[in-house]
Amino acid sequence: MPKSFFPPQRTLMGPGPSDVSPRVLAALARPTIGHLDPAFIDLMDEIKVLLQYAFQTKNALTLPVSAPGSAGMEAVFANLLQAGDKVIVCQNGVFGGRMKENVERCGATAIMVQDDWGKPVDPDKLEEALRANPDALAVAFVHAETSTGVRSDAKALSALAHRYDCLAIVDAVTSLAGIELCVDDWGIDAVYSGTQKCLSCVPGLSPVSFSDRAVACIRKRRQRVQSWFLDMNLIMDYWGGDAKRSYHHTAPVNALYALHESLLMVQEEGLAAAWARHALHHKAFAVGIEALGLGFVVDASARLPQLNAVTVPTGINEAAVRAELLQAWNLEIGSGLGALAGKVWRIGLMGHTASQTNVLKCLTALGSTLQSMAAAVDTDAAVAAAKKIYQA
Amino acid sequence: MPKSFFPPQRTLMGPGPSDVSPRVLAALARPTIGHLDPAFIDLMDEIKVLLQYAFQTKNALTLPVSAPGSAGMEAVFANLLQAGDKVIVCQNGVFGGRMKENVERCGATAIMVQDDWGKPVDPDKLEEALRANPDALAVAFVHAETSTGVRSDAKALSALAHRYDCLAIVDAVTSLAGIELCVDDWGIDAVYSGTQKCLSCVPGLSPVSFSDRAVACIRKRRQRVQSWFLDMNLIMDYWGGDAKRSYHHTAPVNALYALHESLLMVQEEGLAAAWARHALHHKAFAVGIEALGLGFVVDASARLPQLNAVTVPTGINEAAVRAELLQAWNLEIGSGLGALAGKVWRIGLMGHTASQTNVLKCLTALGSTLQSMAAAVDTDAAVAAAKKIYQA
Repeated sequence: MPKSFFPPQRTLMGPGPSDVSPRVLAALARPTIGHLDPAFIDLMDEIKVLLQYAFQTKNALTLPVSAPGSAGMEAVFANLLQAGDKVIVCQNGVFGGRMKENVERCGATAIMVQDDWGKPVDPDKLEEALRANPDALAVAFVHAETSTGVRSDAKALSALAHRYDCLAIVDAVTSLAGIELCVDDWGIDAVYSGTQKCLSCVPGLSPVSFSDRAVACIRKRRQRVQSWFLDMNLIMDYWGGDAKRSYHHTAPVNALYALHESLLMVQEEGLAAAWARHALHHKAFAVGIEALGLGFVVDASARLPQLNAVTVPTGINEAAVRAELLQAWNLEIGSGLGALAGKVWRIGLMGHTASQTNVLKCLTALGSTLQSMAAAVDTDAAVAAAKKIYQA
Repeated sequence: MPKSFFPPQRTLMGPGPSDVSPRVLAALARPTIGHLDPAFIDLMDEIKVLLQYAFQTKNALTLPVSAPGSAGMEAVFANLLQAGDKVIVCQNGVFGGRMKENVERCGATAIMVQDDWGKPVDPDKLEEALRANPDALAVAFVHAETSTGVRSDAKALSALAHRYDCLAIVDAVTSLAGIELCVDDWGIDAVYSGTQKCLSCVPGLSPVSFSDRAVACIRKRRQRVQSWFLDMNLIMDYWGGDAKRSYHHTAPVNALYALHESLLMVQEEGLAAAWARHALHHKAFAVGIEALGLGFVVDASARLPQLNAVTVPTGINEAAVRAELLQAWNLEIGSGLGALAGKVWRIGLMGHTASQTNVLKCLTALGSTLQSMAAAVDTDAAVAAAKKIYQA
C-alpha cells in the first residue's frame, strides 16, 4: 500500500533540476486559484515583465509555455516552421540533435553543421552552410550545451544568421540567468529556456520569447501549426495584453506562482550579479577539480560556469561514484549523455545551487569518494585551492 | 516593482481547477529531487499503479503526460493517428470540437457526428457514421463534457466502436474519479484526463492510458509521431517498467509529488465512495438550484454531478453575478463556453470541492446575489431543500 512520499533531502548538482529555494517552494504551495481569476491575470502580467527582464528583451510575445523545456523547443520550431522549410542546425552535443528531430517532425529539412562535442559552434562552418543554402529560413543553435558544458557565441552566431536573412533560434535552457544572454541586443528571434536550471524553479515550465520578426513569420503562416497545444496564435489570446483573455488551456497555476517568485529573486539579485556569482563559484570549483587532478571536457575559454563536464579518471567506475555521492552525501551529480556517457560527470552549479557551501561540499565528497576507490587524490588541497578563490 | 504573490483564498466551484487540499499542497512543496533519482523512480512506479486504480485498468502504458489536459488529448491523437487516417469524432460541446482540431492537425480526417449541446452523444448516429465509414480507424468522444455538464454512455459508445473494429478514444478530463469510469471493462483504448478536476490536484498534468491494442497501433506506425515531446515511443523508455530509465525530458518533479498524494487520497476514500460523494452533493445542490427557481441545461438522466450548467435567469447579467460572488464571497464559478457563453453558469462540485459546506455556501451566495439584483429568489428555501438531502 503506497504512503505519502517524503523525498530525501538532496543537494542537486546535476545538469538540472537545481536546488529550489525554500522561498520558491513556499510560493508553489500557496492556495490554487482559477486560471481566469483577475488576481491570476495580474500575476501573468508580472511574470511576462519579469521574464522580459531575465531575457533582456522587450518582445511582447514572452511567456512561459505550460510544459518542460523540450516542449518550449517544440513550440519554437512548430510555430516558425512549415513543411518544406529549411533550417541550418548547428550541433555540438545532444541538444542540437534534438533540434534536428524537431525540425524534421515539422516536415522541414535540417541542414546540419557539426562541431566536436565540447567545442563551441564554429561561425566559419555556419557561414559556409549559410552560403550554400541561401533559401534557409533560420539558423538554430544551443547557447549553453547541457550535455558538454560548452558555451557558443550566441551574439556572433545570431548576427551571422541575420546577415544571411535568417531567423536566429537559440536554445537557452541552461544559459538563462547563468551567463550573459541579451535577446534584443544580440538580435535573437526565438529563444526557449527551462525553469529548473539557473532560475532554480521547479521543473515543468519553459519560458520562451519571440521577436516581432518571428511573430510576423507565425502570423503569415499558410499551414496551421501542427500542435494545437503549442499554437502561439491561440496562446497569445490567453497570455496577450488585452483585458479580455480567452481560455486556451488550464494554466499550471501553482507552478506559475513558483516561477514568479524565482524571477523576483533574479530581479532582486540583478542579472549581472547572478552572472558574476555563477562565474565566481565556477572558478573556485574549477581550481578544486584541477587540484584533484581531474580535467574538463571543455577549454577554459568556452566553459560554462553552471555546467561542468569533468572527465572520469581511468579505472574509476563513474556510476559507482555517483551512487556513493547520492547515498553517503545526499549529493546528486549527473552522468554523461550520448557520446560522453561513461566518460564524464556533469556537475551543475546552477542558480540557488551555486554557492560556496556546495562547491566545498562537492569537492570534499568527490575527493573522499575517489580516495575510497584507491585513486590518488588530495581532497584537502582541492578544498584549500577553492577557498583561496573566495578569499581573494 | 513586483512583490511576492499571495493569492486570495478562493473556493473554486468553476469548471476546474477545483480546490486543492492542504495535504496535496504540502506534498507539492517538498524539496525537489532529480528526475532520475532512484527515490523518484520508485515514486513514478507508485504513481503508475495508483493511476491504474483510478482509471480501473491494467494497461501498462498508464502515466501522466508532463503538461495539461489539452496536451494529453494531443498525445493520444498524435500517437495513434497518421496522416490520411479517418476518425469519427462525436461532438456535443466545446471539447469534441477540440478533438476535431487535433485530428486535423495530425493530417487525418475527422468525420463529425453532431449532437445538440447538453445532450449525450447519440449511439444511433454514431452507428450510422460507423456504417458509412468502414475505413475509420477510431471513434472519439467526450465522456463528461465540461462545457455543458452532460454525461455520455462511454461503455455503450466504446462497445459500438469495437463492433466496427475501431479504437475507442475517450476524453475523461472531467470524469476521472468523479463518475464511474472503467477503462478495461468498457474496452476503452486510449483515454486522457486532467489533474485539476475530480482529482483535486494542481493543474498541469494529464494522466493518460493506452490499451495493448492502442500500443500495438503506436508501435507499428510508419510515420514518426509529429511531436517529439509527446512521442510515446520515447516516453515509454522513461516511464517504462525497465530498471534502466532513459532520459527523455525533465519530469515536473514537484507536480508529480502532488499527483501522487491526490491519487493516494482517491485510493484511501475508494473510487466507489468518491463517485457516491459526488452524486450526493450534486443531488443536494440540484434541489437547492431548483428551489431558487433556476434550471439546468442537461436533463437529470444525463447530468454530471461534478459540473452543473445552470441557466442564467432572464434579465440577469451573468458576469456581474460572477464578479460579485468572487468579490464578496471569494467564490469562483464559471461562465458558459462557446454556444452557451452568456447563457449559463458552470458550477463545479469536483473532488475536494464536493462537500456539504461548499454546496450550502454556493446556494447562499448565489441566492443572495440574485436577490440583490432584484430577482425573486428564496435563498432560505434553497438551503433548506439541500439540507434535507443531507439529513435523509
